[in-house]
Formats: sequence, C-alpha cells, structure tokens
Amino acid sequence: MSLYTKRGVSAQKEEVHAAVRQLDQGLYPHAFCKMYPDYLSGDKDFINVMHADGAGTKSILAYLAWKETGDLDVWKGIAQDAIAMNLDDLLCAGIYQNILFSSTIDRNKSKIPGEVLEKIITGSREFFALLETHGIHIQFLGGETADVGDVVRTIAVNGTMSARWPKSKIITNEKIKPGHVIVGFASDGQSSYEQSYNSGIGSNGLTSARHDVLKKDYAKNYPETFEHSLENEVVYIGKNSLSDIVEMTTPKGKEKISVGKLLLSPTRTYAPLMKLLLEQYFENIYGVIHCSGGGQTKCLKYLPGPMKIIKDHLFETPYVFQLIQKNAGADNKEMMQVFNMGHRLEIFTNEKSAQDLIAASNQFNIPARIIGRVEAHHKKSLEIHTPSEKILYS
Amino acid sequence: MSLYTKRGVSAQKEEVHAAVRQLDQGLYPHAFCKMYPDYLSGDKDFINVMHADGAGTKSILAYLAWKETGDLDVWKGIAQDAIAMNLDDLLCAGIYQNILFSSTIDRNKSKIPGEVLEKIITGSREFFALLETHGIHIQFLGGETADVGDVVRTIAVNGTMSARWPKSKIITNEKIKPGHVIVGFASDGQSSYEQSYNSGIGSNGLTSARHDVLKKDYAKNYPETFEHSLENEVVYIGKNSLSDIVEMTTPKGKEKISVGKLLLSPTRTYAPLMKLLLEQYFENIYGVIHCSGGGQTKCLKYLPGPMKIIKDHLFETPYVFQLIQKNAGADNKEMMQVFNMGHRLEIFTNEKSAQDLIAASNQFNIPARIIGRVEAHHKKSLEIHTPSEKILYS
Repeated sequence: MSLYTKRGVSAQKEEVHAAVRQLDQGLYPHAFCKMYPDYLSGDKDFINVMHADGAGTKSILAYLAWKETGDLDVWKGIAQDAIAMNLDDLLCAGIYQNILFSSTIDRNKSKIPGEVLEKIITGSREFFALLETHGIHIQFLGGETADVGDVVRTIAVNGTMSARWPKSKIITNEKIKPGHVIVGFASDGQSSYEQSYNSGIGSNGLTSARHDVLKKDYAKNYPETFEHSLENEVVYIGKNSLSDIVEMTTPKGKEKISVGKLLLSPTRTYAPLMKLLLEQYFENIYGVIHCSGGGQTKCLKYLPGPMKIIKDHLFETPYVFQLIQKNAGADNKEMMQVFNMGHRLEIFTNEKSAQDLIAASNQFNIPARIIGRVEAHHKKSLEIHTPSEKILYS
Repeated sequence: MSLYTKRGVSAQKEEVHAAVRQLDQGLYPHAFCKMYPDYLSGDKDFINVMHADGAGTKSILAYLAWKETGDLDVWKGIAQDAIAMNLDDLLCAGIYQNILFSSTIDRNKSKIPGEVLEKIITGSREFFALLETHGIHIQFLGGETADVGDVVRTIAVNGTMSARWPKSKIITNEKIKPGHVIVGFASDGQSSYEQSYNSGIGSNGLTSARHDVLKKDYAKNYPETFEHSLENEVVYIGKNSLSDIVEMTTPKGKEKISVGKLLLSPTRTYAPLMKLLLEQYFENIYGVIHCSGGGQTKCLKYLPGPMKIIKDHLFETPYVFQLIQKNAGADNKEMMQVFNMGHRLEIFTNEKSAQDLIAASNQFNIPARIIGRVEAHHKKSLEIHTPSEKILYS
C-alpha cells in the first residue's frame, strides 16, 4: 500500500469516480469540465457549467503557519487556492468570463476565529479585483459559512463557479490527435501579475507534501491537523519545519525562502494568459489540461481516442517538488502522478502555433515550451522521459 | 455562556455576518436570498442567484445511525437535507425552477467508504426525480468529492444552487407591512409527497439536538463525532440512544418511532406547495421566510422597516422538539431561536388570501394556519406567545 493510500487519499479518486458514474456526464465526454445545455436561458448556442473545488488540505498548512507566526495573511492564499483551482479548470473548457462564484466554508469555531474568515473573504475579493484589472470579470455572490466543529477539525474552504458560455468558444478536447505538440506553461517563477516568487505548487497533493516534508513535532503540537487512526509511520515524517530557510535559485537569482512559503505558494491562475490565448489563437487550441490531481498523467483521462502522449522535454523540476521528493523518497513515477512537476497547464496545438503561444506566455513572464507531442498508437498511453528514465502509464 | 456557544456554534452567526458584511449584498437588502443582476445573460428583466448550504452536523447523526444499524439508506436523507436547505431558501425568493445544483462533499476516507458516497449521490438523484414528478426541474450538474481526512472527521455534505429568474416573479420581502397576517406551514406530519412521518426537524440546530438528546456512550464509542476541546459537560449529555423507541401521536394515530428516525427525518421541502402558491397567488405573497437557523426569530432579519411581528397562534410543538427541549432543559425563548418548533415556512399575506394558501396547503396534506400578524411599531420586534408566556425579541 502506498503512503498515499495509507493516508486515506487517492490521486486517481477511483471510488469517487465510481460513485458519480451514474450521473449525467454532460455533452462532451472528453472535455475537462462537464458542460450541459443552457438550462438557465434555453439558448441552443450556449452551454451551462457548474464547477466545484477547493483548497483541500492546504488549509491545514495555512493553519500551521498562522499558529506559528501569527501571520493572518496566509489565509488570503487559501482564498486564492479555492478560486484558482476552480477557475483554471474552467479555462480548460475555454471559459474565462461570465462566471459567478460562491464560497462554502466549514469551520471549527473553537480553532478558527472570525478574523480568519475575514481574511479569506478579503483575500477572495482582492484576487477577483486583480483578475478584473486583467479584464476577467467574476462575480462573487457570497456563499455559506457554517460552524461545524464536530465535523471539521480546522477549516474547509471550497468554492463553486457557474458559467454560461457560447458553444462556438468551448474547448472539448475532441480535436486532439496524433501530430499535435503539447505546450507546457510553467507553474513556478513570478508571472507579471504575481507579487512574489511562486513555488509552482497548486492545491493538490498537499496531504502528501505536508506529511512527507514536515517533522513529527507537528503531530504532537497540532493534533487537530490529522486523522488519528493513521499509522504513525505516515504522519508528519519529514525533516523540516515551516520556518526552515532554504536557499534556491529563482528567476531573480539566489533567494532564501522558508519551507512554509514554498508549500503555501497560492495556486497560480493562468487566467490572464489564457484569456489572451483563447481570444487570439482559439482555432489552434485543440485541447487544454489543468495538471491538478493526477499531475502530469492527468491528460490521459481526456484523450478522445487511442493515441500516445510523449512528454520528453519537461521543465526542470521546481525546487518545491525536489524538496517533497527528497523527503518522501518517492520515485519519479509516483511524483508525476501527484504533482505538476513544473507546468500546471498544457495546451495541445500545432507546431507553428506553439511558437505563438510561447511568445504570448513570455509576455506574462511565464516560461513556456513544447514539452511533448501526440503520436499514433493502438491505445491510450503516456510516456514521460526524465533525464534518467522512460516512465510508461496506460 | 449558553450551551450553544460552548459547543462552538451560534444560532445567529454574528461572526460570520461581520465577515461577509464587506461583500456586495445584492439588489434587494431584505430578500431572503441575495439576488444580483443577470450577469450570465445580461437581461435587465432577470436576476441571478447563487446559494450555498448543507446538511451541517446532521451528517454526524447519519454516521452514528449507519454505524449502529448498518443501514446505508440514512445517507439518502442527508442528500435530501443538503438539497432542501438550499431549495427552500430559494423558494423564499420566489424561485422554484430553472435551477442548477452542484454538490461539494468532503470526506474522511478512513471512516466513510465509497458506498456512502454512492448513497448520497443516489439519494440526490432520487430526490430530484421526485421533485420532477411535481413539475420542479432542477439540473444536477455533478460536483466535487474530496478525500480530506485530515480536515474532516467524518463527512461534510454541502450543495450550491444557481438560478436565473424573472424580476417580475421574485419575492423581496419589501412589501411586508402592518396589517398583514402570517401563514405558517407545518414542518411535521406526512405530506402527500413524503413516504413516511416527518418529525419536522430541518438541518439546523442539530449540534444542540445531538448533544442534548444522545447519551454519553456516544462520546466514548464514537470519538470521531465531536471536537475534543469541548467541555465534557456539553458533549452527549442526553438520556437517549438512537434506537430508543418513543410512542407518539402522529396524524395516523399512535405510532412507535425511534429517536434516530425523529432526529434524522430528512428536511421537508415545501417546493411542490410553493410552486402552486407562487403560480396562483403570487400577487398576494408579500414575504416568505424559511425558519432555518434562527428558528422562529428568523423573520426579524428580513423585515423591510420598523414593525412588530406577533406570533400568537403557533402550531403545537412537534414531538421531536419536545424531546430535545426536555433533554436540554432549555427554555422556550432559546428553543424558538434555534428550532422551527412547528412550521419551517411562513408567508406574509392578507387575511383573505390566507385562506386560499391554507386550502392549497391542505391539498398536499400540510397543515397550515394563520400563526401571527404584523403590527405597526417604532422598531423591529417580535413577540411570541406560548400557552404560558409572552416572549419578546428585538
């Protein structure tokens, strides 16, 4: 049994997928988000989407950082996480506008005071205001905050987005086929719309990352941050504290940064970039994947037919994932299945357009490159080449 | 400090309201749900709503009942709770149609297996199918289920609804004024669209109800069902087990029913009734209140100006609330602030129309009656008359 399984999480969420199989899967089976007829307005040329996601267990990292430093601002990052995880899923369907957002926050009032809620709501508003300056209009329609301390140990921060979008502008992934190239857009660094270095981590795989990187002291000092039936050997088994300082190379040169900052980097949204790409290069965007849960293998789920993806030119692994891997002793195969390992967004396109997308990305200071390609094959499969090995998934 | 406060919940949610005060409060300050311009379609004659709510800590009762009896079907009730708590809020705004639903489920995989998720999803589908037979079309667009055992002790079941609705058919509560009467619609009994007796409980106040009614054994046997920093004196301090059988009078005569069934009665939706009322008597419906969190005092929050509500003809208190009150030793003033005490929906109307609404309700086998009235007053206040006292809130 993998550490992941022992911790009661599953990168592939098999059980969840089995449970929801009975539901209407929407109009386009391979699209990244389920899209439905325009029930709200009855226009045959539009679709409706409702999408839910959240910060997951990243909220626990924020809790630990806040308890240790008193810095309430870490909660703003959690607000961004809950929003960006939703928004970037919608981007993959071609949707970047005409979006409504509602939050669902469950808290344990004995651990989470009102000032934390305020920071999360302020953080949400500020993030929407930032997006607004890039022409991305999302309406924040409130939500529900429940005091359910008997259910929730600390806090669960989730959000739901609704959108209505023209069929002529959606991405369904149906066009993906052999011969295409895949452009990856870096998850780390500092984009033109970020205030500081982003480690590249999103809001998935954080249960692993937290337990693998942080040391046992956290179990003793913060028993409210883990399920107590977990075996001791999988709970906070790392070498680090959140306050440990590591020296690493960022686009600005050598920087000293804390482990806490690395793990808590708010999920980057690609919305400002994707707005530009979708507006200018829509015809040449054949498929879009958000490498969230499932990491670099996520694309396998959305291929419209048998074909092989070869990823042989990935970005250098960002430092935060190296740190996690070193602590976890995990192999590349497992890391690729959980974390984005360098790019959280990938676009399937043709070779010529790839250069346009890359150039556009550079304008936002987001490195981009052709990380792989699609080849003809008798079944759906994925091959990832690292400097030392070829890893096969199918 | 009240038991309620000691348990880390607050019927009035003061802290939460303070945190969200900075948000856009929508077009109609006194409406039960926040309504916004039609961002999705840009039609000035329509509004958009997004609304989030959930089963709260009622999921813990389902967990206990399931663990003790092995009956997975209790989880279907939780699905209904998460839906009805949303839907009945929307009903108060006049919305009963053109609704999208997305669920957000956070679970502890080590406690909640996939078969529970399946029951919740099946229960959701079945409840929507039942509503469909009453002409109420709600589209279930999926949702997110996350394995976050380090955050959630058992399971949190939430849902979000989105709707688009014509301005000419919304209820804003602005029309409420002195001279109106208030029709209450019974929360208990067995409506024409329910399969068995409903105790009348909704999905609020369940933290109190559970701890006040259930005995200490539950703390020992199910430590995963409460926050451990709570004082022992507020944790499972009741006299009952879920399997205890009580004899009570229902519309069908004397019935034997378990405490578990009483506490776990799925939240009744008033949607089939409200659809009829809104379609036939819209002009005479001046305000609608869902007596959820805040119970019989909820109406105070939505009055459009200074006036006094007098509730002097409430239904006889349903057995489940008597059971809770007896166990809790709570006074009427507190009970009225937490539980619906007999009717979970109330409509402000004129005296003549009241009889039409009552007659319509009887068709669904939901007892209804004039439970109170609105009087001129210099400030917003509420007076509840019980057989033994007059209780004042303001």
